[in-house]
Amino acid sequence: MVERIRIGMVGGGQGAFIGAIHRFGLRLTGRYELVAGALSSNAQRAAASGAELGLDPARSYTSYEGMARAERLRADGIEAVVIVTPNHLHYPVAKAFLEAGIHVICDKPLTLDLAEALDLEAVVARTGRQLFVTYTYAAYAMVRQARAMVRQGAIGAVRVVQVQYAQGWLALPVEQAGSKQAQWRTDPALAGAGGALGDIGTHAFHLAGFVSGLAVQQVSAELSSFVAGRRLDDNAQVLLRFKGGARGMLWASQVAVGEDNALCLRVYGERGSLSWEQEHPEELRYVSLGEAPRILRRAGPGVAVTGVSHLPAGHPEGCLEGFGQFYDEVADALLALRRGGTAAGLAAGIAEGVEGMRFVAACVQSSAKDAAWVALQQP
Amino acid sequence: MVERIRIGMVGGGQGAFIGAIHRFGLRLTGRYELVAGALSSNAQRAAASGAELGLDPARSYTSYEGMARAERLRADGIEAVVIVTPNHLHYPVAKAFLEAGIHVICDKPLTLDLAEALDLEAVVARTGRQLFVTYTYAAYAMVRQARAMVRQGAIGAVRVVQVQYAQGWLALPVEQAGSKQAQWRTDPALAGAGGALGDIGTHAFHLAGFVSGLAVQQVSAELSSFVAGRRLDDNAQVLLRFKGGARGMLWASQVAVGEDNALCLRVYGERGSLSWEQEHPEELRYVSLGEAPRILRRAGPGVAVTGVSHLPAGHPEGCLEGFGQFYDEVADALLALRRGGTAAGLAAGIAEGVEGMRFVAACVQSSAKDAAWVALQQP
Amino acid sequence: MVERIRIGMVGGGQGAFIGAIHRFGLRLTGRYELVAGALSSNAQRAAASGAELGLDPARSYTSYEGMARAERLRADGIEAVVIVTPNHLHYPVAKAFLEAGIHVICDKPLTLDLAEALDLEAVVARTGRQLFVTYTYAAYAMVRQARAMVRQGAIGAVRVVQVQYAQGWLALPVEQAGSKQAQWRTDPALAGAGGALGDIGTHAFHLAGFVSGLAVQQVSAELSSFVAGRRLDDNAQVLLRFKGGARGMLWASQVAVGEDNALCLRVYGERGSLSWEQEHPEELRYVSLGEAPRILRRAGPGVAVTGVSHLPAGHPEGCLEGFGQFYDEVADALLALRRGGTAAGLAAGIAEGVEGMRFVAACVQSSAKDAAWVALQQP
Amino acid sequence: MVERIRIGMVGGGQGAFIGAIHRFGLRLTGRYELVAGALSSNAQRAAASGAELGLDPARSYTSYEGMARAERLRADGIEAVVIVTPNHLHYPVAKAFLEAGIHVICDKPLTLDLAEALDLEAVVARTGRQLFVTYTYAAYAMVRQARAMVRQGAIGAVRVVQVQYAQGWLALPVEQAGSKQAQWRTDPALAGAGGALGDIGTHAFHLAGFVSGLAVQQVSAELSSFVAGRRLDDNAQVLLRFKGGARGMLWASQVAVGEDNALCLRVYGERGSLSWEQEHPEELRYVSLGEAPRILRRAGPGVAVTGVSHLPAGHPEGCLEGFGQFYDEVADALLALRRGGTAAGLAAGIAEGVEGMRFVAACVQSSAKDAAWVALQQP
Repeated sequence: MVERIRIGMVGGGQGAFIGAIHRFGLRLTGRYELVAGALSSNAQRAAASGAELGLDPARSYTSYEGMARAERLRADGIEAVVIVTPNHLHYPVAKAFLEAGIHVICDKPLTLDLAEALDLEAVVARTGRQLFVTYTYAAYAMVRQARAMVRQGAIGAVRVVQVQYAQGWLALPVEQAGSKQAQWRTDPALAGAGGALGDIGTHAFHLAGFVSGLAVQQVSAELSSFVAGRRLDDNAQVLLRFKGGARGMLWASQVAVGEDNALCLRVYGERGSLSWEQEHPEELRYVSLGEAPRILRRAGPGVAVTGVSHLPAGHPEGCLEGFGQFYDEVADALLALRRGGTAAGLAAGIAEGVEGMRFVAACVQSSAKDAAWVALQQP
Repeated sequence: MVERIRIGMVGGGQGAFIGAIHRFGLRLTGRYELVAGALSSNAQRAAASGAELGLDPARSYTSYEGMARAERLRADGIEAVVIVTPNHLHYPVAKAFLEAGIHVICDKPLTLDLAEALDLEAVVARTGRQLFVTYTYAAYAMVRQARAMVRQGAIGAVRVVQVQYAQGWLALPVEQAGSKQAQWRTDPALAGAGGALGDIGTHAFHLAGFVSGLAVQQVSAELSSFVAGRRLDDNAQVLLRFKGGARGMLWASQVAVGEDNALCLRVYGERGSLSWEQEHPEELRYVSLGEAPRILRRAGPGVAVTGVSHLPAGHPEGCLEGFGQFYDEVADALLALRRGGTAAGLAAGIAEGVEGMRFVAACVQSSAKDAAWVALQQP
Repeated sequence: MVERIRIGMVGGGQGAFIGAIHRFGLRLTGRYELVAGALSSNAQRAAASGAELGLDPARSYTSYEGMARAERLRADGIEAVVIVTPNHLHYPVAKAFLEAGIHVICDKPLTLDLAEALDLEAVVARTGRQLFVTYTYAAYAMVRQARAMVRQGAIGAVRVVQVQYAQGWLALPVEQAGSKQAQWRTDPALAGAGGALGDIGTHAFHLAGFVSGLAVQQVSAELSSFVAGRRLDDNAQVLLRFKGGARGMLWASQVAVGEDNALCLRVYGERGSLSWEQEHPEELRYVSLGEAPRILRRAGPGVAVTGVSHLPAGHPEGCLEGFGQFYDEVADALLALRRGGTAAGLAAGIAEGVEGMRFVAACVQSSAKDAAWVALQQP
Repeated sequence: MVERIRIGMVGGGQGAFIGAIHRFGLRLTGRYELVAGALSSNAQRAAASGAELGLDPARSYTSYEGMARAERLRADGIEAVVIVTPNHLHYPVAKAFLEAGIHVICDKPLTLDLAEALDLEAVVARTGRQLFVTYTYAAYAMVRQARAMVRQGAIGAVRVVQVQYAQGWLALPVEQAGSKQAQWRTDPALAGAGGALGDIGTHAFHLAGFVSGLAVQQVSAELSSFVAGRRLDDNAQVLLRFKGGARGMLWASQVAVGEDNALCLRVYGERGSLSWEQEHPEELRYVSLGEAPRILRRAGPGVAVTGVSHLPAGHPEGCLEGFGQFYDEVADALLALRRGGTAAGLAAGIAEGVEGMRFVAACVQSSAKDAAWVALQQP
């Protein structure tokens, strides 16, 4: 039987974006049980959010301190907490839970600045609790494949690493126009020392090291704030020197109009190269010196690494979303029926099923008649 | 609070592929509770599969008939059942549950042949229960967007519909080499009248009608079996005549070497066209007559339809998979710790979090020094 | 020394589109000398067109009959003629030149109908002169590569051939709005029995046979005219049966809004497949059964066939166009100077050359100074 | 009538790569006459090369000095010379011809170093002759379109410019294995101060300025030589500061295994962005802030700029190559016939022409018979 882990969440209440994505991820595995939360510092919103997620009201807290304290004392207390707050809370919240003996899963970047991070490292060491950071791009199947190939020597010693993470959603001063997501990300007190650099540059940085297996030793960086009045960088350009002599470039931008979430990594070695784009995550371009480029696909030939879903090749992970959407609409219909209403919506039903069989029958008949036209015998 | 639906499953035991995908979809919504199953006709495998999924052993049945009977009588009986068996069982299983007053969610194609399908249609009408068919491609966000655009007149009256569903996994006689998936799909007694036609052609057929809004009136079809000894078509070519005068072509093949799951739809109207490929499901190519092609992306400009996950633009749905994989590995680590072991694995931890902050700190410092090289101050 | 061939042209005067493209092709080889023409049936336009091309006025004819007669008698008469007229003239013009002992290079489709074509075949046999048809897509480097691979058995015995040629420029009744190109192509008296079928379907048909090495034995076709009042098909859908048992589909359309010139060919064999798209002509997707897809590129690894230009890999043939455009602008400048004017235009000059050296110098200096910022020393 | 320019060439003899491409470009325009050359410093190779190109032996020189002197004195002397030698000869050759009153078209980079370039600038000023540099990527149609759009304000004030030029052909020490192209490019005495930087980095640099309209003010550069024993950079990473505040990054590499000729430019402005890739030169991705990305295609909607060939949309410039290849093969056949042999080769002939008409006839007949199968009436 699947052993499930009792988990809690700090942040991620109604209206939050990343909290919901974390819950999708948790749910997808089927291995977690979300049983407690301090989903908002606003008591009313915390309660409403907890109710929506089916939390026991007694475990829907309004402060993370209270939550850490209370959960520590319960026999069925949470074993781990997910922190999906703005950056400035990462440090105190993580510390509180670690010290309460609870493992922590923290969104990136880890803290406001390096000093907090080092301090947290000490707390982890002292408490013996685990802290995970959600550099989730490193968990994509084809990123794992790329990493494995580099380690196996498929491209030889790495020479050049090119990584970029480009978005365009901060091209206008949206933080001055009410965007909450933009407000805290452009406020040094809430976001920390890096703007685009911290928010997405850390993803790119981690990914580059994760796949190449190399550590950055030195950086030469130029941070810019293109939007008037913005206090943190919205464009970061960095030259990288890796340990061992490899060279690289990193570009992180949130003013790259026309880019949605263009995280791309290319690693060039002495005998080959690998290229991956997050927006087409199922494919990994691999070139072995002197051979034609190959497009490796998740679960396809030459690919050993698979993802949590074990979907077959060609069924992109969006396939899950299709299944999810389908079942969501079916749920709507079934709940309507439960309440004595009627099922509506776009999910295919008996009529569509019959129609498909009509089609098969007509095709079989037509083919048997040397491709004569056959009507679909509609009633 | 999220209202959850009690659901059961027939088929989909250990080793089955599509059952697991259905469960991912169910789980993604967070709106279902899988509480009963007849997961295998083999008693031992049924029990093991049920245990793995955490079913109450009393509700892990070995026959669908027994399951329908028992669940009907329980106060907390399932409200709906998912059927993920080979095709020949769709009809009897669906009928049994419908007659037990339980809604049915059935995999495609609906039945072995049209006669069974029409009979089932009568059962649905008689019992007043609902039957859904998992034409899940119709639930993809950009397919919904395409459908909405056609209905809103974005491409004018439809003239031509081109649809294909190409796979290559049956290019060799794998059914003679032990592939279970291939065995039943190429056996008329288990699969029905259509081979590739029924298995994937029905998806293509449904998609074409779903998006274009048009009904096929006549087909002219040529079914072929390219693999020696194969009794059902592995390649189907069909000319389509739609009601109202539109024309189309449908190609379904399972011997198209090099294709994984290439479901593609193109709809050409008097004033525009739409094109979608399942392997890049996030994008929809739209051309309005006389204008440059536009690439619409889920959650991007000009796109009103969103999916169940409400991911922002550029975060492909595979993003969920990344989160899922991440949390799966975290679960491994936490369970190891629970048992007194140590956390291992690739999920990023405190060290990676600190490293990211080092990077931010070094970049900020470098940029402040006119892009001087700054070391990452590694301990 | 390059031996050059004396050639003439019928059709292709000022304003004609395809004549100019033929002349580009002729010129690119450097092996032809265009010395005679009946470029237009309109005497004035013929003269002007001939002058523009530098023809000897005595060899700028107003009728093809006169041209054939006169050129036959000249010691330096043309050896071959290029026919780039509307279809209805292909037959009489080709016949006249063949009978004058002159080889013929004729645009496709060969004639108005099959009877004319068979008659021309007899004329060719009788006169011993050569007739070429400009199925020029068969001359693309990667098409040649595909053909060679099929012949070498790279994909095994061919099972399925999918070919399409889709354009959208006839989606509106442009022939009723003054488009000359559309007028003759939609007039059975000038275009022949096929509309889209003859104009582009013949290209697709030839390409399918050229690459697959298979002959079509039977067709099952549905021709449609979607634009009101149009007398020839603007959409053709054809099922194909090849000699030996392979099956295929061909789609030719000129009402496919949003498609420019989408000629695509896919050939699936028992052990592999090949896929080529004319709009990205440099690439050929090749899959060998059980291996990851490879992207073969002209002049790249695994590709033996090269084109006339012998450009290296990654320099798309458009590269020639860039060079051509550059030299065209240089010619403008030089001619202006010849006439005592000044050179203007966008072609890079001394300033841009110096600027490039400034850049190199600054980069070398910066790198030597540990990537310090270095100014470009602008004057 | 087309006015033609008498032109000469220095370098580009048998076996040289870039000389042939220049001649293709010259030929494509139809506006030049190559009448003189110092094609090689080796007398025998110079003579053979000249003969192959049909030069008057008296004008096939063995030294550029002799050529400049002699051509200056002829009434029909060349008006311009194309220099396609290794870099170290650019300066003396250009100077010699400029001082002989002959315009110069010089390959990039202009000279060995900045001092030579500045000196040449003075020579140009003094002689009043013109000097062009073959930054031919700036002559691509969609590059021109991008430039025009930036100037027209389509993307607003430019903020960020990302440019790369990546090749992989120097990943191994091929200069030590006999590659002539590699030998001079990696030898400071022949190539100058920059390796990859000078050879391809100058292209990228020029392109960035040409399209963005911005001048680089400062660079921060890191040059590396990854191949042991190589004396010039084979990888160049540069941070750019443009006049006016825009920022950019430039990467030029010849050790990027798997890249053929990956020149890519992206320009991000306040209200939009443009992206172009040389390997798919027909397309320009354009995003206007808040709208879906549009794919502009040469000669397509929204594109005003056309190239020298005026090919219609969807006919990639490779189309010319197809025509060229076709006519090349026809020339082979005609020359064989001229010599009393027989025509062979792949160019389509009467049989293929007839076959196409058979296809049309059969399709028309089939369609008239409700898509009945019709044989192709092969003899």
